[in-house]
Amino acid sequence: MIDFAPILKKYKPTEEQNRELKHTASEVLGMINSILEKKKIKAKSLLVGSVAKGTNLASGDIDLFVIFSKEYSIRDMERLGLMIGHEVLPQGREKYAEHPYVSGQLGGRKVDIVPCFEIDPGTRIISSVDRTPLHTDFVLKNLDSEGQDQVRLLKLFMKGIGVYGSEIKVSGFSGYVCELLVIKYGSMLKVLEAFASLKGKMKISLEEGEIREFDAPIVIIDPTDITRNAAAAISLENLSRMKINSRMFLANPMEQYFNTGADYAPEKYRERGTVMRIFTLEKPDIIDDILFSQANRFRNIIVQILEEDGFMPISSEVELSDDIEVMVECKLEKLPATKVHVGPPVDAQNAIDFIKKWSGGRATLGPYVCGDRLCADIPVGKRVLEEVVQERINGFIIGKNIDQFKAKMRIIDPAKSNKKFLVLGKFYNKVLSGLPS
Amino acid sequence: MIDFAPILKKYKPTEEQNRELKHTASEVLGMINSILEKKKIKAKSLLVGSVAKGTNLASGDIDLFVIFSKEYSIRDMERLGLMIGHEVLPQGREKYAEHPYVSGQLGGRKVDIVPCFEIDPGTRIISSVDRTPLHTDFVLKNLDSEGQDQVRLLKLFMKGIGVYGSEIKVSGFSGYVCELLVIKYGSMLKVLEAFASLKGKMKISLEEGEIREFDAPIVIIDPTDITRNAAAAISLENLSRMKINSRMFLANPMEQYFNTGADYAPEKYRERGTVMRIFTLEKPDIIDDILFSQANRFRNIIVQILEEDGFMPISSEVELSDDIEVMVECKLEKLPATKVHVGPPVDAQNAIDFIKKWSGGRATLGPYVCGDRLCADIPVGKRVLEEVVQERINGFIIGKNIDQFKAKMRIIDPAKSNKKFLVLGKFYNKVLSGLPS
Repeated sequence: MIDFAPILKKYKPTEEQNRELKHTASEVLGMINSILEKKKIKAKSLLVGSVAKGTNLASGDIDLFVIFSKEYSIRDMERLGLMIGHEVLPQGREKYAEHPYVSGQLGGRKVDIVPCFEIDPGTRIISSVDRTPLHTDFVLKNLDSEGQDQVRLLKLFMKGIGVYGSEIKVSGFSGYVCELLVIKYGSMLKVLEAFASLKGKMKISLEEGEIREFDAPIVIIDPTDITRNAAAAISLENLSRMKINSRMFLANPMEQYFNTGADYAPEKYRERGTVMRIFTLEKPDIIDDILFSQANRFRNIIVQILEEDGFMPISSEVELSDDIEVMVECKLEKLPATKVHVGPPVDAQNAIDFIKKWSGGRATLGPYVCGDRLCADIPVGKRVLEEVVQERINGFIIGKNIDQFKAKMRIIDPAKSNKKFLVLGKFYNKVLSGLPS
Repeated sequence: MIDFAPILKKYKPTEEQNRELKHTASEVLGMINSILEKKKIKAKSLLVGSVAKGTNLASGDIDLFVIFSKEYSIRDMERLGLMIGHEVLPQGREKYAEHPYVSGQLGGRKVDIVPCFEIDPGTRIISSVDRTPLHTDFVLKNLDSEGQDQVRLLKLFMKGIGVYGSEIKVSGFSGYVCELLVIKYGSMLKVLEAFASLKGKMKISLEEGEIREFDAPIVIIDPTDITRNAAAAISLENLSRMKINSRMFLANPMEQYFNTGADYAPEKYRERGTVMRIFTLEKPDIIDDILFSQANRFRNIIVQILEEDGFMPISSEVELSDDIEVMVECKLEKLPATKVHVGPPVDAQNAIDFIKKWSGGRATLGPYVCGDRLCADIPVGKRVLEEVVQERINGFIIGKNIDQFKAKMRIIDPAKSNKKFLVLGKFYNKVLSGLPS
């Protein structure tokens, strides 16, 4: 096996970095606490996330929670939470997860100040954000310093193969899932062994006993709430990537699997002897997690239109840059002028109607009999890919935040454009990494 | 209803034509009988077919049988049959049905001299040809002169809509089936009414009682042999044509349904905004019934190749002219340079082999994960329709009589050829006739 020490050394925060981090964090906590005191708000502040759990990488963010007493209404909690965030991070921007929160920079680091409600372990769910402090407690109790480093290595491996991150755009493994996996199996390598030998779904719990059913490719029972699947965000594709990369790494361990810098850059179009088009929409000012679902629906609708109208899509991809970008690759860019329209069986009541409808030159050929049915070759209306999509897209509801931009959708042939598209980078870079060459 | 008298007058043989016919027939019968006598052959001659049954149209052929005693071996019967045929029709050519026979011209008419064995009604089948004399007897006993005219009208209707003829190329209604239908239903119009109101299969017998199962769209029990379906040759498509044309005629009776001159002529290519190609093979010297099955298999093989390789065939047709002609219409004439090659699931034993196979630049993109499987975009080999078919056709066995010509198959783009192809005429003329315009 390769030596993991140099990898860990490269990405684990140094003593000094950790001191700095802790300093910035306690500074923010202090600021929050003084606001709470001054305004007599019944809440307490808490450092959460990987920094709190000791599983952070050198580049990690600082996540702080403001945990409100259950006496407050949701509305008041959210209002007070934003007020505190803006006061601590004057340059910060409002974002929206389960509750709105403020995200900004402090001491060169990204800092999120997120409001939530206080809950006890096992309590009825209020929201998944509200459960985060319980996760911090659980991980701190169950991981020693060696375990924390194993989580770091697992995160690095997952980043290297592109499956790390629970945001919808990635639909991969969260930091908490990495922690639970290391607690379950004992080390990064043991986790990889589990995925390498896994057939079909993964279904695990840290405790004995039967595991509840969830409709998801991976089920990892959250030890702080056994009704919840902590791995619900992970897509089948990312589970598959994890399985095959684990097999490949164990068969041929190479450091390059831990190369986390391989984020895909925009790329020029590559000639593939196919018909490639990029569909772009303006991007509304909402967080990516919400926008991405709608962007993905936009992709699915375009693929559906191209499929139904016979352009034969081969591949597609979606990405968010300054715009929403959808790439679709097809076999045809122009439809044949004629298609065979299959009518009713000759026995059917409406057979004569079909004949009347398509007689007298309205069909390019027919009506005629094929098997026990009537057919007619009829002219196809719009035949050019761009025209068909522009016309049909109006008949679809994509999502409330982007429907307003449908009319301004642009369709670009990347072979004829000098622009580089992030979506092409994503498409070209989906190749399995770390392959022996 | 329209007046059928003028239609009948136009196509029914006149008194004089019938006298001539009878004269020619008895001349031939006399010649055959004198040979039989001279050579002491135990056989008798018989006029069969529509002339014998009084259901012939003015243009009808003369069919004569030489009925051999069952004492002869098949080999001797066939040898003697050909000898007699050649002596009576010195210019005649040998053809092959169930037994070989001689076909030629006499007094301006086509004459066939067909050898067969003597059998009794209900006897175990020797061959369907041997049963023909029994058909003649049955029809003569069950049709009066009005019934004979009704058969003539039914034949004319069926010729008009292109479903008359039991040869494999047509797969339609034989003269005998027309006679049985008129005996069953009483008149041409009653036959049309039966088809107009028919749902699904037709299943009839002239006698009461349960009807045996046959795997055919139409079952008409042969009254001279209840184990036989007299309508076995009729295709689903021709049954469907008969149904819908009967409905249309009864709803709007027009003389043009009886226009039997509408045999399709060769036609020039018509631009349809599709990719049309004609594949021709040399024609060996065998009868059309045997050749057509192989020609149809040739059509099916080409369609299969085009389907499998992604050219997306829309329509196809087959016809015999001086050559075997197959027309196929497709959506694509050139394949995209890249195709998505779907590999094994990531769980599979051979997943790593797939990755090794397609790594290192052998794929244009990939290997990558899609869902729970591995994929790679790989270059397509031959991409042009003509090249793909020329290459792949060698891997197929079409039929013993035409395989020798495969290597000389020609592929013609009719848009770039001045030649007129019979197959295009057949394709363009499949339109339902007699439509109100």
